[in-house]
Amino acid sequence: MKIAIDVMGGDNSPAANIDGVFEYLEDIKNSPIDFFLVGNELIIKEYLEKKKKSFNHITILNAEQEISVNDKPSRVFKLKPNSSIVKSIQLLKDKNVDAVISSGNTGALLSTSLFLIGKIKSINRPALAPYIPSVNKGFILCDAGANVDTKPEHLIQFAIMSRCYLQNMENINDPKIGLLNIGKESNKGNELVKQTYPLLKDKFKNSFIGNIEPRYILNEDVDIVVCDGFTGNITLKLTEGIFNNIYSWISKDTDISLNTSLLRNIKNNFDYEQHGGTPLLGIKGIVIKCHGSSTK
Amino acid sequence: MKIAIDVMGGDNSPAANIDGVFEYLEDIKNSPIDFFLVGNELIIKEYLEKKKKSFNHITILNAEQEISVNDKPSRVFKLKPNSSIVKSIQLLKDKNVDAVISSGNTGALLSTSLFLIGKIKSINRPALAPYIPSVNKGFILCDAGANVDTKPEHLIQFAIMSRCYLQNMENINDPKIGLLNIGKESNKGNELVKQTYPLLKDKFKNSFIGNIEPRYILNEDVDIVVCDGFTGNITLKLTEGIFNNIYSWISKDTDISLNTSLLRNIKNNFDYEQHGGTPLLGIKGIVIKCHGSSTK
Repeated sequence: MKIAIDVMGGDNSPAANIDGVFEYLEDIKNSPIDFFLVGNELIIKEYLEKKKKSFNHITILNAEQEISVNDKPSRVFKLKPNSSIVKSIQLLKDKNVDAVISSGNTGALLSTSLFLIGKIKSINRPALAPYIPSVNKGFILCDAGANVDTKPEHLIQFAIMSRCYLQNMENINDPKIGLLNIGKESNKGNELVKQTYPLLKDKFKNSFIGNIEPRYILNEDVDIVVCDGFTGNITLKLTEGIFNNIYSWISKDTDISLNTSLLRNIKNNFDYEQHGGTPLLGIKGIVIKCHGSSTK
Repeated sequence: MKIAIDVMGGDNSPAANIDGVFEYLEDIKNSPIDFFLVGNELIIKEYLEKKKKSFNHITILNAEQEISVNDKPSRVFKLKPNSSIVKSIQLLKDKNVDAVISSGNTGALLSTSLFLIGKIKSINRPALAPYIPSVNKGFILCDAGANVDTKPEHLIQFAIMSRCYLQNMENINDPKIGLLNIGKESNKGNELVKQTYPLLKDKFKNSFIGNIEPRYILNEDVDIVVCDGFTGNITLKLTEGIFNNIYSWISKDTDISLNTSLLRNIKNNFDYEQHGGTPLLGIKGIVIKCHGSSTK
């Protein structure tokens, strides 16, 4: 199996991206996976030499163009063909790799995947479906930011894709689906969720457990929480922001030993880094988006 | 000054509502405020007698109809004229009181206020503006749930009302205004926020500090965060839900003494009960909505 790693994406690139690959290679002695490290060749080689890493299972693919915050994500695949995102996706398109992993710009990754690889048949909008840890077992939140303006039929497709994903990847036969909303009752919410509710009920029958209120989202027995990408991204980032603050307060306020056990507990339950990336559901190929702040 | 208290609203009614009034009357010996306790007279009298409370500064106004979750909020003022919400707002309309305080159904309170009292001139939509404690000084979030489907001009009005409120109530001369969004850049977000950004910039010039990302919302130096009521309500309830979970984890995981100091610290910083109710901005009269879970 071959995987392309976008080495230049993310806040801690290229160190975190390369370290992650080598941590895997050190853990798994006869790795069944070969890696393409896609990024600035000079930077990658310099890092590998500094860290005295061997080049077994590693191919470097030079990609020198940098994507900046000013680049319009939807134009990246045209204007930055030599960026690490576009070259990684091109490897997948050309069947030189089986999957791409990137912690780069989500919009650029998504639109490049859309334009170069395309969508699964009968899916209108690809979506992000990160795993969100919770008090019980966690759930996937779909869409978490790929589609900021959506229609009810898109939310139904998010639910269908998320269900396939959990059925095939997590062996959850009949995942419970909820709709993120400001109230429990079916008449609550904005026009989008009010129109989506009966469609979900009709499509998924008893697997649709109704509205999920954000106040109880971490305590619900639910596998999939469906929402538009704007609301999903707000939910994801607010959750992270609050937990980051909690870590920092606890670190300041309690003594070291308790601190450690309490932090470990919360971190184990709630750290997105423990739970890997999110697939771009709906893309006709395996593209995994990792968190931009991931450390390895 | 006279204040109507909706005694029947909220999860802990009537006890919490009545206790709150008496805590005030015990603290402030010669109260300049007289209270109307609006609700089921038998229940109120029974509670006062059980608690051996005097009736100084207290008038009871009987309101026997109960508002249920099945009542459509916009129909309450017509179908339940003898409910505590409608009778409280009627007292305000008739100038028998100067303000109403309720922790009842938000939608019913809002639409009853709208129909009986009406809006301030040139305001299209009243909005909720609760104070959200944060790492620095806190901010008000507007709209936090009154308007689930909004247009850019409504968000501008939310900012105008919030600014007036802070200028007059908190003596903040030039409050900093932010727009809740999934990214910092002005081109991020859904259609609503993308259209709202330049309007806010144009109207408020340098007082508009740009987009506020939910990841950093608790750390920003901002006085007013503007958003549609659906997003605002999600933000409010998710924040509460996470903090409720944090309290419960800390209580379970650490020893009692640390527990107490840490919880007190977080609670002091983050407990909505410490920060009273939210005004219904845009209503032509003082109507304060308290949290449904308030304990007194």
